[in-house]
Amino acid sequence: MDPRSLILTLFLLFLFTGSTAASPGKIKVRRPCRRLVFYFHDVIYNGKNSKNATSAIVGAPAGANRTILAGHNHFGNLVVFDDPITLDNNLHSTPVGRAQGFYLYDKKDIFTAWLGFSFVFNSTQHKGSINFAGADPLMNKTRDISVVGGTGDFFMSRGIATLMTDAFEGEVYFRLRVDIKLYECW
Amino acid sequence: MDPRSLILTLFLLFLFTGSTAASPGKIKVRRPCRRLVFYFHDVIYNGKNSKNATSAIVGAPAGANRTILAGHNHFGNLVVFDDPITLDNNLHSTPVGRAQGFYLYDKKDIFTAWLGFSFVFNSTQHKGSINFAGADPLMNKTRDISVVGGTGDFFMSRGIATLMTDAFEGEVYFRLRVDIKLYECW
Amino acid sequence: MDPRSLILTLFLLFLFTGSTAASPGKIKVRRPCRRLVFYFHDVIYNGKNSKNATSAIVGAPAGANRTILAGHNHFGNLVVFDDPITLDNNLHSTPVGRAQGFYLYDKKDIFTAWLGFSFVFNSTQHKGSINFAGADPLMNKTRDISVVGGTGDFFMSRGIATLMTDAFEGEVYFRLRVDIKLYECW
Repeated sequence: MDPRSLILTLFLLFLFTGSTAASPGKIKVRRPCRRLVFYFHDVIYNGKNSKNATSAIVGAPAGANRTILAGHNHFGNLVVFDDPITLDNNLHSTPVGRAQGFYLYDKKDIFTAWLGFSFVFNSTQHKGSINFAGADPLMNKTRDISVVGGTGDFFMSRGIATLMTDAFEGEVYFRLRVDIKLYECW
Repeated sequence: MDPRSLILTLFLLFLFTGSTAASPGKIKVRRPCRRLVFYFHDVIYNGKNSKNATSAIVGAPAGANRTILAGHNHFGNLVVFDDPITLDNNLHSTPVGRAQGFYLYDKKDIFTAWLGFSFVFNSTQHKGSINFAGADPLMNKTRDISVVGGTGDFFMSRGIATLMTDAFEGEVYFRLRVDIKLYECW
Repeated sequence: MDPRSLILTLFLLFLFTGSTAASPGKIKVRRPCRRLVFYFHDVIYNGKNSKNATSAIVGAPAGANRTILAGHNHFGNLVVFDDPITLDNNLHSTPVGRAQGFYLYDKKDIFTAWLGFSFVFNSTQHKGSINFAGADPLMNKTRDISVVGGTGDFFMSRGIATLMTDAFEGEVYFRLRVDIKLYECW
């Protein structure tokens, strides 16, 4: 190759790459840089199961009490939880972490919740936390909430978590499958 | 142009672009990549308006009840809401989505709130959710909170929402104008 | 240097820089672009200190009241706060802002909390807010939570805040040291 041809090739290549480089952050591919699937298990305190319960009603609208979930699709109930996280859908599997935070039922005519919580890990496999927030229209088969941040192994992460109700037993137990897709990894 | 001149030009251009490329993300312009304005309407349950109410007090400090907003600028009241979102400032316009989440009054000597909520859309125009969090010093004409994430059409969004109290009627109704400015769009 | 050598040098340099440029955002250094240290002070209302109290229990599980923190490591207590922020560890120093939001105790067998709050500044030194969310396993010496957003001087910030319990007096007072490390600055 003579110098001129090389320069031309180089120049074209340069222009192409240069234009990409000049707009950092604009080209974003919707492909997770990290993906994790977990289950977590919520056993709601109902006045009789204090030993097994992992969550409790701590707020309720006027006229409702905090032992029985309120009528009108539990509208107004605020529930605090500390739930075991497992790798499979078995409540009795060894927990790999804890899901800690709250949910509140926020709609009168259908079941819908709002969630603010963290996955907290302190094992050989994962150390750190993932923080979540978002609406959970729980009658939908899958629902997306936001991963708003992370610490430790999940330092500065952002992404989407797709929730799916994997099982429920009346008003005492439910199990969520959480498919975490991180699109910002550090 | 002789090869040497071309190489020099190329080299200078390269150095310039190279230095931009080497620090991706540093040059950030404060110009929204997306902007949306909505209104939402909150009708607080007061013991008499259960049919129209869109929100309810579910937490209150000791000595206060959950039907009447507490004294001391409602300090300690936690309110859960499911409010209609409209494109204009008319409560009776067809809602385009729901604002769902909570606010809490967190100051004794002046009205101030803290908000955690989502805009949930499921129409032909918008599908997905926008998640918000932040302090709302509601005596200020405008207040900025954070857009901490989004899903669906608002996948991975971040930005600022400027709130303005557009109207209020005593302690039963208020309407907020929300000017959403997204600075990270995917 | 003859043209061929220069072209080769240039080409190698170009390839190296080009590969960096082609993946903007991938090379992220874990060095804060901004760092701030503050203290905040929480005086919990206990039925007798209404004048000095800066926080109040507004949610509690069935069987507990809202004047005394609940048993079982306060599991289920939701506390709303408006706490002074100071530059040093003295409660009586002039506040530089307010820490506003909530925490909830979410575990029965050990003290653990979940936090959603903002630092709100309106002084000559800082104007704007920083929004935080995350789990606070408060028996650990230091705990990391997420900075999920910011407004004003902290426009669009993200990062990590390391919390440390700097002092506490029984169940009435605690002081947190907050070491804010921002990794995304605009």
